[in-house]
Amino acid sequence: MSKIPVMEIFGPTIQGEGMVIGKKTMFVRTGGCDYKCSWCDSSFTWDGTGSSTSMTAEEIVSDLQKIGGDQFSHVTISGGNPALHKGIGELVDQLSFLGIETAVETQGTFWKDWLTDITDVTISPKPPSSGMTTDFAKLDVFYERLSKEQTSLKVVVFDDVDFAYAEDIHSRYPEFPFYLQVGNEDATTTNDQALVSDLLEKYEWLIDKAVASKTMNKARVLPQLHTLVWGNKRGV
Amino acid sequence: MSKIPVMEIFGPTIQGEGMVIGKKTMFVRTGGCDYKCSWCDSSFTWDGTGSSTSMTAEEIVSDLQKIGGDQFSHVTISGGNPALHKGIGELVDQLSFLGIETAVETQGTFWKDWLTDITDVTISPKPPSSGMTTDFAKLDVFYERLSKEQTSLKVVVFDDVDFAYAEDIHSRYPEFPFYLQVGNEDATTTNDQALVSDLLEKYEWLIDKAVASKTMNKARVLPQLHTLVWGNKRGV
Ligand code: SF4
Ligand code: SF4
Repeated sequence: MSKIPVMEIFGPTIQGEGMVIGKKTMFVRTGGCDYKCSWCDSSFTWDGTGSSTSMTAEEIVSDLQKIGGDQFSHVTISGGNPALHKGIGELVDQLSFLGIETAVETQGTFWKDWLTDITDVTISPKPPSSGMTTDFAKLDVFYERLSKEQTSLKVVVFDDVDFAYAEDIHSRYPEFPFYLQVGNEDATTTNDQALVSDLLEKYEWLIDKAVASKTMNKARVLPQLHTLVWGNKRGV
Repeated sequence: MSKIPVMEIFGPTIQGEGMVIGKKTMFVRTGGCDYKCSWCDSSFTWDGTGSSTSMTAEEIVSDLQKIGGDQFSHVTISGGNPALHKGIGELVDQLSFLGIETAVETQGTFWKDWLTDITDVTISPKPPSSGMTTDFAKLDVFYERLSKEQTSLKVVVFDDVDFAYAEDIHSRYPEFPFYLQVGNEDATTTNDQALVSDLLEKYEWLIDKAVASKTMNKARVLPQLHTLVWGNKRGV
């Protein structure tokens, strides 16, 4: 049995972004990432400032039930990059046995067979502003192996160069539903009111970009709702 | 050929709420409603303060193309209650022929056969705070005739009584994906900053209610994004 490094388990709350935006869910956040995005809002999962606990799938399910009671039927596994961990396959099996749906977000750099058993898979390749370089051969594998019903692509956009990257991604993988997401340029500020008006202004900018782009006719453009409601607070 | 009373045509912009939240779309708003909800944010469609133009499906498509160019592939038909108008069937056929998807929102009081051809149908029965009374026999017809892939239920919630009504609706029609939406108590204010913080506060209240309700385990909880971005402005 492969153990999973867990940074935090919390909820129920709502999923604030992407393909199941607004959905009531629990969160399991795993440690470790093969990327180091310049604007990572979960850098404590990989930069040494946070610490993880090594847990079996059974222990995670037990913690989820202790914290969430019977008030949930959906669990989101986020990171870091959850696709680094083999043991998640067993977690997904156990949750599925209990009738609990699952969601995962990964940048699409490491394939794992358990991904095909996830209800809602978000692949979020990182645009140029992150400082990372996309390995398209690896992304192609996700496109081949996941169904379009269970999958979406999501690109966070900070600037015009990121937007052009998003257009490329959407055009290369047209069968996957596509989501544009506003970047949060200040993932540490505690001035919530300034953060909200800044994020809404950037959201409007991103809507305007999508409206003007024929490539984005089928796209969905979304903010991060949890950041609008709770600012940069963790564990909500 | 049945003409359609059109109040406004605008876009492309994004759908701010419900099952296709964030989606790039054009809007066609029809006139007339069989309800008079106390907090209706589109009362100009039925209270005599707005005026409509009687248009054929062809004229509407031509206007959509004039305004939206080739920058859209999705059209949302809203109201008022669009299901009052027989002529929308032809509009949907013509759009579908052009490869354009459609969405409709209706409170579920009048059935029309063209509803089965709509890509995204939102049925939004009105809670007690609206002052309206739900005819469940009529809602049942929508449940029988629409597929769960194309349909969602959405209930706007202003208070605890509305929330209990939402639980009833969700329990009665469990196969349809269910959306809770924050009510906008001041659909006329122009103080956008106060409106945003008020709406985000109520959104957090609604999330807390959903989190505490086992009935809402599969629900999605959403604000109106267009109101957060543009306040009560029309035609965006
Ligand atoms: S891939 Fe995600 S978790 Fe990893 S560094 Fe980038 S933003 Fe952070
Ligand atoms: S059903 Fe909709 S359009 Fe009709 S009065 Fe109620 S809120 Fe307004």
